Amino acid sequence: MSSAPSQEGRLSRATLSEVALLADVSISTVSKVLNGRAGVSTETRARIEALLQDRYNRRAPKRPVAPLLDVLCYEIDSPFASEVLASIELIARGRRIGMVLTGATEQHLPEQSWVDDVLERQPLGVVLVACVLPAKDKQRLRSRNIPLVMVDPAGAPAPDVPSIGSADWNGGYLATRHLLDLGHRRIGIITGPDDMLASTARLSGYRAALDSAGLPVDGELIRPGEFHHRDGLAEGRALLSLRNRPTAIFASSDLYALGVYEAARSLGFAIPGDLSVVGYDDLRIAQWAGPPLTTIHVPLVAMAEQAVHLIMRLRDEPELAFSRIDIDTTLVVRESTAPLRPTRRQSSAKVSNR
Amino acid sequence: MSSAPSQEGRLSRATLSEVALLADVSISTVSKVLNGRAGVSTETRARIEALLQDRYNRRAPKRPVAPLLDVLCYEIDSPFASEVLASIELIARGRRIGMVLTGATEQHLPEQSWVDDVLERQPLGVVLVACVLPAKDKQRLRSRNIPLVMVDPAGAPAPDVPSIGSADWNGGYLATRHLLDLGHRRIGIITGPDDMLASTARLSGYRAALDSAGLPVDGELIRPGEFHHRDGLAEGRALLSLRNRPTAIFASSDLYALGVYEAARSLGFAIPGDLSVVGYDDLRIAQWAGPPLTTIHVPLVAMAEQAVHLIMRLRDEPELAFSRIDIDTTLVVRESTAPLRPTRRQSSAKVSNR
Repeated sequence: MSSAPSQEGRLSRATLSEVALLADVSISTVSKVLNGRAGVSTETRARIEALLQDRYNRRAPKRPVAPLLDVLCYEIDSPFASEVLASIELIARGRRIGMVLTGATEQHLPEQSWVDDVLERQPLGVVLVACVLPAKDKQRLRSRNIPLVMVDPAGAPAPDVPSIGSADWNGGYLATRHLLDLGHRRIGIITGPDDMLASTARLSGYRAALDSAGLPVDGELIRPGEFHHRDGLAEGRALLSLRNRPTAIFASSDLYALGVYEAARSLGFAIPGDLSVVGYDDLRIAQWAGPPLTTIHVPLVAMAEQAVHLIMRLRDEPELAFSRIDIDTTLVVRESTAPLRPTRRQSSAKVSNR
Repeated sequence: MSSAPSQEGRLSRATLSEVALLADVSISTVSKVLNGRAGVSTETRARIEALLQDRYNRRAPKRPVAPLLDVLCYEIDSPFASEVLASIELIARGRRIGMVLTGATEQHLPEQSWVDDVLERQPLGVVLVACVLPAKDKQRLRSRNIPLVMVDPAGAPAPDVPSIGSADWNGGYLATRHLLDLGHRRIGIITGPDDMLASTARLSGYRAALDSAGLPVDGELIRPGEFHHRDGLAEGRALLSLRNRPTAIFASSDLYALGVYEAARSLGFAIPGDLSVVGYDDLRIAQWAGPPLTTIHVPLVAMAEQAVHLIMRLRDEPELAFSRIDIDTTLVVRESTAPLRPTRRQSSAKVSNR
């Protein structure tokens, strides 16, 4: 299969010489740019990339007849990813584009050989779902004129890649506001990792809602997690075991919320009678929960649509100025939230009802 | 994009003439076989296919450098499909094969243009996940020497396509046996559609387990469904509202089980205190349920591995005799099942504990 030399083989040795001559550099410098290696100044790299793109465009009509779209995705079988992928596939299918799906590593990165294979496949574009791409790989795609778009739930800062996100601050605010409107005053939150902008934004929305209601933020009620079910379970238990326990929890992912459900069940608290819970994402598991989960709807279908449309626009206008759009989030009220019952003592764990 | 004429274009007009001459038929007959159209006798079709395959094999070295595997899948974002797809992708990735993923229609069929696009892509093979392929499409793949394998949870009878399933009868037997061993005697079942072999086999395993315990089968306790959450909810409610209600339910899918959980919760029955529940599939949602769900493990990872390995074997040995294998299912005991409490009256619905 392909490796760096075979990548060069795509453009003839004569073409490389021509580019080197026009850019006034050595062939090995052109080769470095082509393969995303270091040791070339930004300015020279840009000049060479422009020339290479020009050569590539002339060859473009030889694109395969059954066009492909490459998607690199973290945790293909997570409920979140599978809903995004189904949406991308539906749009691609409507345009008779084949979706090539590749999973990412635990570090949200592609395997080393992935970009070589993408270059061989010559897709219309590449969509990243909850993944990042090393600068070297981005450059290699760029030099072949293959557009790249991120569907980015994490808000990972990558200003050089167009990205489609959703309104996380707004979601955090809406979730907390809903609980405040029901009369809750002690509202716990389980947040995501500090280094994810999405987590910070949701937490910030929570704080802003409390502020606007004139309530202090109690550090004891803010719990960290990694967006796994087990974190929701552990932190839900911790929150429910506090002397002055919260009457509501904003679980900032639906998986957290299911963990909180299990914590409440095992400690004998009824949802929503004893505890209101709001999730985040509005995955299908939210509807299947018992009781069905009140949550923040993340517009996954619209995000997928935007990503594919953007790939197509970038093919037509490679210089299109586009950095990021965030699509709006909304509150979906189901059965896991209820007005605070003011008469009941909330301070101690009940005996299990099992 | 491709259509019938462009498919023919793959083999030159001269080659078609040659095949027609050798097979002693008209060029239009060769074209019919190539495009899977009717009006050719089985015997003539076989002769033409053999000649076409021979021509195709000579051209085979021109296969694309970055090889592809086509997967056609019903409901990409169902928990079942997403786990199968992640397994197939992992194996394909390990072999540097790109997985092209296409969704099927509501009828479990491909879009009309799908097989044209597959032929253009020239994949190493095609895997069907919970889908069926019209005879015409199967013939077209066969005449191009593209192997086809089904990952078949439904047990759909298609003797001409190698398929990988799992031991459904055994799973139904194990689930019911487990409940009998816990002392339950009134055991409800929510079955799948009559026309799915998998449903029939699971139900048959349930009957056999009751038989072996010397218990009669009570038709009132056998409830139909379409493997949706809502069926589990509706039939769970119906079973729990019976005068002589079951103390255990074998929900023959994990989604059913979540529906039964919700039915129990809304009627005020505790799981497993008042009702034991066994699911089927062992999807990740089974672990996230409250309480974690006892279920039958379907070996999705092993099924996916077998499917990809079989594609590779069929490439090497197109005449390999292979019809179907069923991989073994196992019981996974979690917290949704408990011994029958003999002292408690089971005959009337409790008052809700909310």
